[in-house]
Amino acid sequence: MKLDFSVAVHSLLYLDAHRPNKVSSRELAQSLHLNPVMIRNILSVLHKQGYLIGTVGKNGGYQLEKALTEMNLGDLYDLTIPPTLSYARFITGHSGTDDEATESPIAANISETLTDLFTVADRQYRAYYHQFTMADLQRDIEHHGTFLAKERGLDS
Amino acid sequence: MKLDFSVAVHSLLYLDAHRPNKVSSRELAQSLHLNPVMIRNILSVLHKQGYLIGTVGKNGGYQLEKALTEMNLGDLYDLTIPPTLSYARFITGHSGTDDEATESPIAANISETLTDLFTVADRQYRAYYHQFTMADLQRDIEHHGTFLAKERGLDS
Repeated sequence: MKLDFSVAVHSLLYLDAHRPNKVSSRELAQSLHLNPVMIRNILSVLHKQGYLIGTVGKNGGYQLEKALTEMNLGDLYDLTIPPTLSYARFITGHSGTDDEATESPIAANISETLTDLFTVADRQYRAYYHQFTMADLQRDIEHHGTFLAKERGLDS
Repeated sequence: MKLDFSVAVHSLLYLDAHRPNKVSSRELAQSLHLNPVMIRNILSVLHKQGYLIGTVGKNGGYQLEKALTEMNLGDLYDLTIPPTLSYARFITGHSGTDDEATESPIAANISETLTDLFTVADRQYRAYYHQFTMADLQRDIEHHGTFLAKERGLDS
């Protein structure tokens, strides 16, 4: 879900801004105006992947384990919004129960064609995010327009 | 919805394969294994945009108005899956009721940054589809692998 990506990114920026303090999931939830359970689920994924360390108990909390420059935005996107494994529900055509002999060549082949098209489009979409790190995103927070400027640069 | 794009593309290929015959929405629905109402809704959009002509009554039906080479795949994508106008529900941070003075700089600015990021990513995603016409898609139906081969060509 796209919101998961936004929550991950926002949490990492917040933890970075509060280095070297430990930050509780409750504090993060308050700052992001979100349910603490949702925050904890996403922090748990980031924790497993080594983005942060967590300590429990009184004075416990989360701290970043890496610099923002070491956090690739595409990796975070793939982690929080995994690629679609099957486009079956988005595609018409061949169903397993059809008699293939009587099926039209279009119905028999459109699934493979659209799966290829959607798969390549999705890979190129993700490649866009992989160009950036969390440090680029932080730069845009401080001074809006860097992503738009880069796009204009590509066009010219 | 991505399925709408697939239905539009499949319908156009079917109508192309049956030129110069008129095809009823019932026949299309049977071939695509879909509800005739869904087919009619999508054909109505394609009709309004001049992709096909429809005649009513006995012997009525749909016929293509253009050649497949004149149908851009990105135009069809934009038509059936319009761009997201607001990413608000995918983004954390500033809410209208916050006291801006007490809000953190991250929460105050992340919405604009993520909106820019998502908007540019989506525009580049759509640009991928705009490279192709329905004739390219038909070619892949007849001989799978053209989209994958083009992707490999870009990489090398």
